[in-house]
Amino acid sequence: MKIAVDAMGGDFAPLEIIKGCCLALENNPSLQIVLYGDKNLINPILEKNSFFLNQQITIKHTPHFLTMDDKNIRDQLKTKPNASLFLAFQGALNDEVEGVVSAGATQALVLAGHLILKKMPLMQRIAIAPMFKSFDNRIRILLDAGANVELKPQHLLTFAHYATIVAYEILAIKNPQVKLLNIGKEFNKGRSVELETYSLLSQAKYINFGGNEEPQNMLNTSADILLSDGFTANIALKTYEGTVLNFMKNIKQIMTKSLTKKIITKLCFQKELQKLQKQVDPREIGGAMLLGLNKVVIKAHGSSQAYPFCQAILQAQKLISAKINQKITKILKNQEL
Amino acid sequence: MKIAVDAMGGDFAPLEIIKGCCLALENNPSLQIVLYGDKNLINPILEKNSFFLNQQITIKHTPHFLTMDDKNIRDQLKTKPNASLFLAFQGALNDEVEGVVSAGATQALVLAGHLILKKMPLMQRIAIAPMFKSFDNRIRILLDAGANVELKPQHLLTFAHYATIVAYEILAIKNPQVKLLNIGKEFNKGRSVELETYSLLSQAKYINFGGNEEPQNMLNTSADILLSDGFTANIALKTYEGTVLNFMKNIKQIMTKSLTKKIITKLCFQKELQKLQKQVDPREIGGAMLLGLNKVVIKAHGSSQAYPFCQAILQAQKLISAKINQKITKILKNQEL
Repeated sequence: MKIAVDAMGGDFAPLEIIKGCCLALENNPSLQIVLYGDKNLINPILEKNSFFLNQQITIKHTPHFLTMDDKNIRDQLKTKPNASLFLAFQGALNDEVEGVVSAGATQALVLAGHLILKKMPLMQRIAIAPMFKSFDNRIRILLDAGANVELKPQHLLTFAHYATIVAYEILAIKNPQVKLLNIGKEFNKGRSVELETYSLLSQAKYINFGGNEEPQNMLNTSADILLSDGFTANIALKTYEGTVLNFMKNIKQIMTKSLTKKIITKLCFQKELQKLQKQVDPREIGGAMLLGLNKVVIKAHGSSQAYPFCQAILQAQKLISAKINQKITKILKNQEL
Repeated sequence: MKIAVDAMGGDFAPLEIIKGCCLALENNPSLQIVLYGDKNLINPILEKNSFFLNQQITIKHTPHFLTMDDKNIRDQLKTKPNASLFLAFQGALNDEVEGVVSAGATQALVLAGHLILKKMPLMQRIAIAPMFKSFDNRIRILLDAGANVELKPQHLLTFAHYATIVAYEILAIKNPQVKLLNIGKEFNKGRSVELETYSLLSQAKYINFGGNEEPQNMLNTSADILLSDGFTANIALKTYEGTVLNFMKNIKQIMTKSLTKKIITKLCFQKELQKLQKQVDPREIGGAMLLGLNKVVIKAHGSSQAYPFCQAILQAQKLISAKINQKITKILKNQEL
């Protein structure tokens, strides 16, 4: 199996990206990685870190890459067609690789994926689907986390099908429960899009629909999949991230205010507080899946270091092995009949 | 000044509601409270707690009241017209009181306010506007926190005006900054409603518009007022509340896992952790304002004990003293010219 990696995307590219690739290849002989990026930057890192892996790594050289300031992807595709991310997608389009992993900007991945790789024939929209961990050690899927600010009920139904298969294949959940993110539990809560989606999901044969879920229960919901439009889910995610960050910062300040307190914290509480933080650390999961494109695409966190980037690659490997795109196509075709 | 209090609304009604009234009346000779509810329940509490205050408290007796199960307020208004909340609004409509405070269900207050008190002539929508505290000890206003699942840009503009006056008059902020809650900072982020509202706010003469704000910055934004539709803001609020609750629960567990740890925590950290929790405790603020009705209406938290309910009454008193409704009417009239 060959996976394309955009060596130049992410805050710590190319160093941590390449280190992540090396980690992913360790004891993983069936995997090959094609690195898209500047060989003059890549080769010295490879030589220093993982000379022995060279047989599993190929470099597709390009000196061009997207920066975080490159906002207009349509323009960039014209003026900078050989940017590493674009070439990685081209490689996937030409079947040179079976998937793409990048820590570049989300909107760049969504748009370039859309323009180069194109949507699967039966998908009307692409969804960003991160997996997130919680205190109960369960992993859940949230979608759409930001690809579409507005969605129709039919799009959300398709996403529910897609995520159900992913949860079954990747998370090994037998009968994954889907819930609709909403401002109340009752069936008549929300906007017209929630009311109609509720009704569609209730009737869907292959979906284990559990009704509405309020966002205060995001971390301990019975659901395996939380469904919403990209605007709402993005608001919930960002609120969650901001609150966690703010709280942890304040608690750290309290716990380490003096040398004595620092020592006490280290002796008594540090291990468990770190465990708590790790329990909800998004970096443990890898990246967000871009569901609906003609190839498996994983968007790793922009701030990915080697380990989380490695996780993102392994996630892509799992999705490809599970033939996820063929499976959703089959389901969607059955639906059409 | 006379304020109506729904003695029967809230999880701890009527006991904590009445205690809250007594607290609010202490050293507050200009305030009178009209208690709507069952005198057979109210009188024993009054006698036990605050006999000396009786001159400032009047009881409007009714044995009927709404329960949390009374969801359909239109029906209830027909079948239970003498419910305490409805009578309180009637009292306000007949100018017997200048404002209403209740810890009853939000939707009951919004709908009964809408049906009985009616909207101010120039308001097209009612907004729920809670004030919330943060680690930086600033108080901010969020609206609409849940009255309208969908809003037009013009409605949001009106809400921005309203909240600006409230922040100026009640929070004594000279030039309150308004920001639009959105999934990105750039002007072109969000749905069409955000794009259009952004443009309206940029042109508004009396509004200090600071652009978009992402929800991860809710607790440390430069803004005094965060603006959004009732669906989005409600999602953000509930995500925030759930995250705080979950985190505090987990941290408490870690800090008190054994007797030794309990003692250490109590000696070293408890005071500051409690202070942290208090810093973001919504109960300190009182209640949420219902902006846009013909009288001042405050929705206190359903779980209000005496102190927070007292704060909600004092908040109503401030809004009435500031003649908030006359002021917003003037601004809206000026806008029309």
